Amino acid sequence: MFFASDNWAGAHPKIAAGLAAHTGGFSTAYGDGDLDRAVYARFSEIFEREVAVFFVATGTAANALSLAACNKTGGISLCHRQSHIVEDECGAPEFFTGGSRLLPVDGALGRIDPARLEETLERLSPEFVHTGRPMAVSLTQSTEIGTLYALDDIERIAALARRYRLPVHMDGARFANALVALDTTPAEMTWRRGIDIVSFGGTKNGCWCAEAVVLFDLGKATELSFLRKRSAQLFSKSRFIAAQFDAYFRDGLWLETARHANAMAQRLAAAIDASARARLAWQPQANEVFAVIARKEAERMQAAGAAFYDWHPPAGFDGAIAENEALYRFVTSFATTPDAVDAFATLIAE
Amino acid sequence: MFFASDNWAGAHPKIAAGLAAHTGGFSTAYGDGDLDRAVYARFSEIFEREVAVFFVATGTAANALSLAACNKTGGISLCHRQSHIVEDECGAPEFFTGGSRLLPVDGALGRIDPARLEETLERLSPEFVHTGRPMAVSLTQSTEIGTLYALDDIERIAALARRYRLPVHMDGARFANALVALDTTPAEMTWRRGIDIVSFGGTKNGCWCAEAVVLFDLGKATELSFLRKRSAQLFSKSRFIAAQFDAYFRDGLWLETARHANAMAQRLAAAIDASARARLAWQPQANEVFAVIARKEAERMQAAGAAFYDWHPPAGFDGAIAENEALYRFVTSFATTPDAVDAFATLIAE
Amino acid sequence: MFFASDNWAGAHPKIAAGLAAHTGGFSTAYGDGDLDRAVYARFSEIFEREVAVFFVATGTAANALSLAACNKTGGISLCHRQSHIVEDECGAPEFFTGGSRLLPVDGALGRIDPARLEETLERLSPEFVHTGRPMAVSLTQSTEIGTLYALDDIERIAALARRYRLPVHMDGARFANALVALDTTPAEMTWRRGIDIVSFGGTKNGCWCAEAVVLFDLGKATELSFLRKRSAQLFSKSRFIAAQFDAYFRDGLWLETARHANAMAQRLAAAIDASARARLAWQPQANEVFAVIARKEAERMQAAGAAFYDWHPPAGFDGAIAENEALYRFVTSFATTPDAVDAFATLIAE
Amino acid sequence: MFFASDNWAGAHPKIAAGLAAHTGGFSTAYGDGDLDRAVYARFSEIFEREVAVFFVATGTAANALSLAACNKTGGISLCHRQSHIVEDECGAPEFFTGGSRLLPVDGALGRIDPARLEETLERLSPEFVHTGRPMAVSLTQSTEIGTLYALDDIERIAALARRYRLPVHMDGARFANALVALDTTPAEMTWRRGIDIVSFGGTKNGCWCAEAVVLFDLGKATELSFLRKRSAQLFSKSRFIAAQFDAYFRDGLWLETARHANAMAQRLAAAIDASARARLAWQPQANEVFAVIARKEAERMQAAGAAFYDWHPPAGFDGAIAENEALYRFVTSFATTPDAVDAFATLIAE
Repeated sequence: MFFASDNWAGAHPKIAAGLAAHTGGFSTAYGDGDLDRAVYARFSEIFEREVAVFFVATGTAANALSLAACNKTGGISLCHRQSHIVEDECGAPEFFTGGSRLLPVDGALGRIDPARLEETLERLSPEFVHTGRPMAVSLTQSTEIGTLYALDDIERIAALARRYRLPVHMDGARFANALVALDTTPAEMTWRRGIDIVSFGGTKNGCWCAEAVVLFDLGKATELSFLRKRSAQLFSKSRFIAAQFDAYFRDGLWLETARHANAMAQRLAAAIDASARARLAWQPQANEVFAVIARKEAERMQAAGAAFYDWHPPAGFDGAIAENEALYRFVTSFATTPDAVDAFATLIAE
Repeated sequence: MFFASDNWAGAHPKIAAGLAAHTGGFSTAYGDGDLDRAVYARFSEIFEREVAVFFVATGTAANALSLAACNKTGGISLCHRQSHIVEDECGAPEFFTGGSRLLPVDGALGRIDPARLEETLERLSPEFVHTGRPMAVSLTQSTEIGTLYALDDIERIAALARRYRLPVHMDGARFANALVALDTTPAEMTWRRGIDIVSFGGTKNGCWCAEAVVLFDLGKATELSFLRKRSAQLFSKSRFIAAQFDAYFRDGLWLETARHANAMAQRLAAAIDASARARLAWQPQANEVFAVIARKEAERMQAAGAAFYDWHPPAGFDGAIAENEALYRFVTSFATTPDAVDAFATLIAE
Repeated sequence: MFFASDNWAGAHPKIAAGLAAHTGGFSTAYGDGDLDRAVYARFSEIFEREVAVFFVATGTAANALSLAACNKTGGISLCHRQSHIVEDECGAPEFFTGGSRLLPVDGALGRIDPARLEETLERLSPEFVHTGRPMAVSLTQSTEIGTLYALDDIERIAALARRYRLPVHMDGARFANALVALDTTPAEMTWRRGIDIVSFGGTKNGCWCAEAVVLFDLGKATELSFLRKRSAQLFSKSRFIAAQFDAYFRDGLWLETARHANAMAQRLAAAIDASARARLAWQPQANEVFAVIARKEAERMQAAGAAFYDWHPPAGFDGAIAENEALYRFVTSFATTPDAVDAFATLIAE
Repeated sequence: MFFASDNWAGAHPKIAAGLAAHTGGFSTAYGDGDLDRAVYARFSEIFEREVAVFFVATGTAANALSLAACNKTGGISLCHRQSHIVEDECGAPEFFTGGSRLLPVDGALGRIDPARLEETLERLSPEFVHTGRPMAVSLTQSTEIGTLYALDDIERIAALARRYRLPVHMDGARFANALVALDTTPAEMTWRRGIDIVSFGGTKNGCWCAEAVVLFDLGKATELSFLRKRSAQLFSKSRFIAAQFDAYFRDGLWLETARHANAMAQRLAAAIDASARARLAWQPQANEVFAVIARKEAERMQAAGAAFYDWHPPAGFDGAIAENEALYRFVTSFATTPDAVDAFATLIAE
């Protein structure tokens, strides 16, 4: 009953096997080996256009480098108030950009509200030095609270950004979970809707450590290669990342693990919904479930071996939370078993 | 005949097996899992005192964060002119410290000359705002050109630094190679001689990706934990690093692989020394061999499948290099076989 | 009728004369001359304790350096949403601190609401690396919208900050205007209420360019001297700043000019209040007046030679602004004449 | 007998008068006033082409912002080992550029040796991420040790930089002294020889505080305006700088003060040359004189009221300095009187 986070899981056996298969032999280092190149080509296939791919160590690195690739002196990036770059990166985006600012935009259920985004963009002059100037829009797919931007939502936000000549970044730490939930393609969910740069996460979905920046504007590739090296994110034995992605994409493993995680979230949500002791805070759309539970109940279940955390209610959350209750987050992954979910269902029903 | 770099090798089979053994199950993320903690304890045993250990993605990250932990506004770090932080990190140390400076000090055979270090330190006032102020001394063990600081050398430099109240950093990307070559202990090669912080590298010596900052001053641990997170170097599934170090230290594997690499370097050096067509630039002490070879000869061997690179002669190199010659570097590792060395020996003798 | 800003004025004749008096002769540079030292001593007298004084070029520099003196990796400074550091410094605070973050706290009429501050502080752990950690509280006196913190307000906020071990910075770009409005002393308005560091502005109140960081914690003085030099804010001929402050403090000139500016604001407010065509947005307490005026009326007056700007209504402003109206700011200074105010009164009454 | 530095002088009476003349009245702030604009136009006249002018607080700011305008991730700027940016700016260039590096190039008498510059440029690849990449060349005119680049020297260095696609910055803290010494025009000494950006100093030559970045590439102007504001170098009452430059350029005052300073240096040099107790270290070309003097003699003269400092002998200085001797620097300025020089001449002859 480990629902604390999708990064509490280890690696999928096929990822582990793929990595093991590349243990021996000699290969060019620093991202220039044959396997690296094959994986870059695979990314281009998957995105249905030539992309530039940069392996990095963490999702935070992918996000911070993506913003650094859009950097402007006095720059302001617009993002959701509960985004990972705002809440969970210890100022890495600011650090990697030499002090640019994140300007939170509100919106229900973890999604930027386009109307508020427009209002904010209208207020920010690109020329007025006192305030600084807008430099990027960043959205998270799936969001930090397990919801999704529909393709039209992405398009609308990206079109708005384009009107203000701003690039759009997608934090795709849970890219695959969103992709299969929307039953769409990587191209449709990104550049065809106006996304310019993606933090492409594989770690939460079954890899040990497989994160990449995917760039659609190849003109920024040289800059990004310097940015990555300068931030100490260029792996020497980069094939250990490549081998993971190689296995990840093989035979659609990544889609399969994401589908599994999402299905486990639905199963968990159903169990919670059916319970008299908890209620869903909102409908889960990917692999995260949020529920309002009496604290005592939650503690009882934690004591019984269920791992999950309480969560700060997002601004604008309109569900009532009583004094004796709290909001809790449950995350599923490739490693979540139906048995674990069912055990939890039993536990919550007790 | 792959002598291009020790990072052209993959992972040692025991490292791969160790990692595979930890594939399954759930574990706390971000460096707080049981395996992480066990490995931290192992580091403390190995160093014979309590140390704080921070896994990071690359040797460059370990170096840059080590210097960041010693950071001062207007800071100046003294290091050898051919050190990795000067030559090969794209300004990461400067970036991680918000613009501190590296001040190269000369010295023969890759080692800081203590007399020159003293001279430089004497010139730098810790109070004169115009020039900036000294903040750290950094030395590399084994050096970038495969030589060693004797324990007394380390002690002398550290004592000098201490006199000027400066912490001393050791870039130990090839820590194990130095350790076994000197036949000493980690404690003797570091804190007992005055070292304050170590970039402890496992990658070049048989791991996929296992680098750590080892801190002897526990008072700096909190700061380093923020520095690491802010630079996007905190792994979520950190046990994949821990598992590598766990295998690395088990039954002295790390010492064995380092001894092997060093022995291969000696075997290679002997072959070069015996050849009429090449001469050793200096005596190798760890796992790197430098030789002066006629360019045509080098090209012939490269065409025959030997992988090695030419190298910029270090300042102060007193060996003559003729017009038609160049300096070349050969690096051995755990993965270098006696057969490969012997094949090269045959090739060079042809 | 120049009410655009208090920095549209030139220098007070006595400031100009004071500067002229120090034109000739030779003096040690970089803040170490006799006049510099005399002025530092004068600051200590004025603040009734030994202070460290650092002349800088701009109010933005004073603010950014003050925060830099409190800097922490992953640091978060709490300040009002409409503060100058948030709205008007192009990211200088973030830049000077290598990427720390400003976290806006709301509050009516330009003042931080202590309850909201406490709520925010409670949410921020000083140890949780993911979110970053609180590093300072910054308040502005008088505020950006011409209101004041009462001495008790300052004390309450500072006590709260102290409870969370955070230093408190006061942006005193209009320090003198607040001081005379509260009829208090520099000591009472600052360190006796818990302020640790002050951006002490003289420019808006009659100087050409006279800004200083005033530090009550002398232990931070060395660090600040390096921070200032590294940010290119150390003047060579620093006596040109010293001479201005010397004249500024002589015979209470600074209090006199501030009293005059405040009185002109009251006179202007009365004229607006008396007019049927405009209404005060809130009661002015220092030298800024905000009024809601029909756009057409405002344009008519601007066309007639009155200089003033529209202003973005502060979050939480509860005064109704009709479709055809806007909020406008009027700033008075030492140079504002009663005649100019009366001319405006006539104009608005037309 | 004040020869300690040209920044020990105050302001030229005409500069003081010019500033006083602009004390009253209201004017747009932040560099957009009428006087500001008139002065910008005057700069364009003086440089015989349209230039973008940015007033800043210090010469260090002008240099650091100039390099920031040329910034590259992993950037390396080449400059002379004894340049001000290396020796006297506390890391401001590194800070303003987020950690770019200054790579010292040697050369006799304070001037970059073009052959060594070429050698260094050849070694630096613009694409190899490990080392970083060249981003600018910076030269100082007149140099830190009072020598000059001939126009052909400037052209040669700039052509070399152009070959490697690097912009060329001129640190003109003593621009006027060089200009009159070479009897040339601003255009000839800068853009006609390939200079792209100039730190134009007025402070040392008679102003209180008048420094500017002069940009020939107008395409960089917007970026520089943000860089300046973000580094807290945008003055509110900028006319106080404009007024100084206005007086500075009026009736050729700036050339007159520079000629005077240079003449005083020659007079001083002649006195030293004629003395048996001191010898010129090299021939002065602008307003700085360097001499080798017995320490006891120097101390005697200092005790008698002559203000001058000892100086670290530049690398490559081939003049012998005996054990009991040292190198000393004497700086003259607009404020140096023939009487003061003659008094020194008498003193040294005693």
